[in-house]
Amino acid sequence: VQEVLLLFVGLGVEQSPTLEALQELKGCERIFYESYTSPVVNKKVLEEISVGPKVEVVKREFVEDGRKILELAREKKVALVSSGDPLVATTHQELRTRALNQNIQTKIIHGSSILCSLAGELGLHSYSFGKTVTMTKEPIQHTAYLTIYQNLLRGLHTAVLLEWDESSKFFLSPNAAVDELFGVEEDVGYGIVSSDTLLLSASRIGTSESKVAALSFEDAKTHDFGKPPHILVVSGRLHFTEKETLAALTKKAQDSFRDNSEKIEKVATRMLSKYSRKTLDALSRARAATKDSNSSVNFSLVFENVEAYTSDAKRFLSQGKEELAVLSIGYAEGLLDSLRLSGIIDFEW
Amino acid sequence: VQEVLLLFVGLGVEQSPTLEALQELKGCERIFYESYTSPVVNKKVLEEISVGPKVEVVKREFVEDGRKILELAREKKVALVSSGDPLVATTHQELRTRALNQNIQTKIIHGSSILCSLAGELGLHSYSFGKTVTMTKEPIQHTAYLTIYQNLLRGLHTAVLLEWDESSKFFLSPNAAVDELFGVEEDVGYGIVSSDTLLLSASRIGTSESKVAALSFEDAKTHDFGKPPHILVVSGRLHFTEKETLAALTKKAQDSFRDNSEKIEKVATRMLSKYSRKTLDALSRARAATKDSNSSVNFSLVFENVEAYTSDAKRFLSQGKEELAVLSIGYAEGLLDSLRLSGIIDFEW
Repeated sequence: VQEVLLLFVGLGVEQSPTLEALQELKGCERIFYESYTSPVVNKKVLEEISVGPKVEVVKREFVEDGRKILELAREKKVALVSSGDPLVATTHQELRTRALNQNIQTKIIHGSSILCSLAGELGLHSYSFGKTVTMTKEPIQHTAYLTIYQNLLRGLHTAVLLEWDESSKFFLSPNAAVDELFGVEEDVGYGIVSSDTLLLSASRIGTSESKVAALSFEDAKTHDFGKPPHILVVSGRLHFTEKETLAALTKKAQDSFRDNSEKIEKVATRMLSKYSRKTLDALSRARAATKDSNSSVNFSLVFENVEAYTSDAKRFLSQGKEELAVLSIGYAEGLLDSLRLSGIIDFEW
Repeated sequence: VQEVLLLFVGLGVEQSPTLEALQELKGCERIFYESYTSPVVNKKVLEEISVGPKVEVVKREFVEDGRKILELAREKKVALVSSGDPLVATTHQELRTRALNQNIQTKIIHGSSILCSLAGELGLHSYSFGKTVTMTKEPIQHTAYLTIYQNLLRGLHTAVLLEWDESSKFFLSPNAAVDELFGVEEDVGYGIVSSDTLLLSASRIGTSESKVAALSFEDAKTHDFGKPPHILVVSGRLHFTEKETLAALTKKAQDSFRDNSEKIEKVATRMLSKYSRKTLDALSRARAATKDSNSSVNFSLVFENVEAYTSDAKRFLSQGKEELAVLSIGYAEGLLDSLRLSGIIDFEW
């Protein structure tokens, strides 16, 4: 068995090492600790992980460059310790890949990540989350907005990570993120963000000052979320057990936790409601126009099909077959409109 | 400051307590350990968490019922210890909600969860995952299949959890899950599962026997994944850094990691390619049938519209306006077919 030479240790959201981590750290000849991936400073950590050699605090550049660590790990057991999970940060993942490619044996000691702890803290089901987004200080966060939209279409929650930059000590505030989403709403207009859209937040998870909140987007503009880190959730359809926990956590009524996905109408649903009404209205005018006709044209077969396809469209939509629903209503419309376009009957569309 | 009376401790995927957890456990008067949420048995755990009162191993029913724990927690400091993250299991979350509603102070010590560790183990980006699915031994896992499909439409990875039942020691095997997905494919036919679809697996994460694999669905039918627990990933679009890590982990060529989302055609795309061809073919037959007609019917206006809407449909699709594309092709089809249904012209559809 080849000895592990590069150890990745995650300290979790509480920044506390496990017994297994300490056991492994004891055998290391060098221990590097990086704090740039988390804005939480925990002085106890350095003491707790000082079970072997003196812990060396390193910056992002040191890990990104990585050559020093890899050079050492070719001969000695070396550890890189970080908060959260050690492989969520891409710089760590890259370092591990380089180690693997250089045949340096690696070992991972996972830590709890905010990405998973978040669900539990807020009482949300992990499997009700869609793709996660990150918001940065860059203006016009269309990608974040569109991801929230796509998740909401499926009734899913979206975890919104906020940019943190250690070198400038910049943490995107929840207030700024909310302002930004209002801005994109104004531009794109899918109706996902309005004053009463429900926003959930979890602040300082893993510390003694952790706090969760549930508030409207309007209130979130000016709410004091306290010190970072914060993580936001734009919730989708809430299961009743999720509402129960949110109510217990925030002392609010269960029915105050609205379903943000409810008002998101699929394009297909909007089309159906508009075009099936229009088609049926036009159908009755077309019928009236052919009432006393003794033409050889088989109007009734066309009309029956218009009716049948309009009602099929509704059924398909209720079965989730959106494309088939839209195809059917388009076909019904075409059947009817052809009689008008071709000049066979005259009726208003 | 009210004292914490109900403590939830997660031991992470490595089943090892943190120093903070041990510190808290020391002050407890009762410590309950439940092992039903994980199939990994780690004998060292009981010893390691025995820092105060004798650890009592409990079963699912005890936690689900919960009355005993809550009764104790009204007066004494009590801990419920589990592997992974303590709030991912819904039974734990429910217990916490009941505690909050009874004004019992709670504290969470998070642990790494397989749901997050998984991404790192396989070198995948956490934010490239869509909704997670669970597969059970129930036949016909349409929900899992459809979720994978929806994730793939967005290029996202799907984590596939496999049912584990402690009482019967049943763990759904990756082979059975793969067979099941092939079965649903045969029924639904969205083309997400074929012999060469890429499947990723991570087995026994957090233990010394952890192993990851990348293989085709065909090979996965008979592959020996070893002892549980296993977790599967149906990957979507892979970033080049994800391919790099997968290649380093599995010693396979980077270009062997195919994009499973590439061959997933949206329903709208399939419809367009089928119906625009059919409509244009029928159009030329309709034109031929009216070639020498001197009817007063304005065929040419209808025909022009059929052409215009068919070409609009293609343009809409290329702009991502799928519903409008389908509506247009349906309308074009209806315009043309009306002339046939009404008996005005006779042509084959």
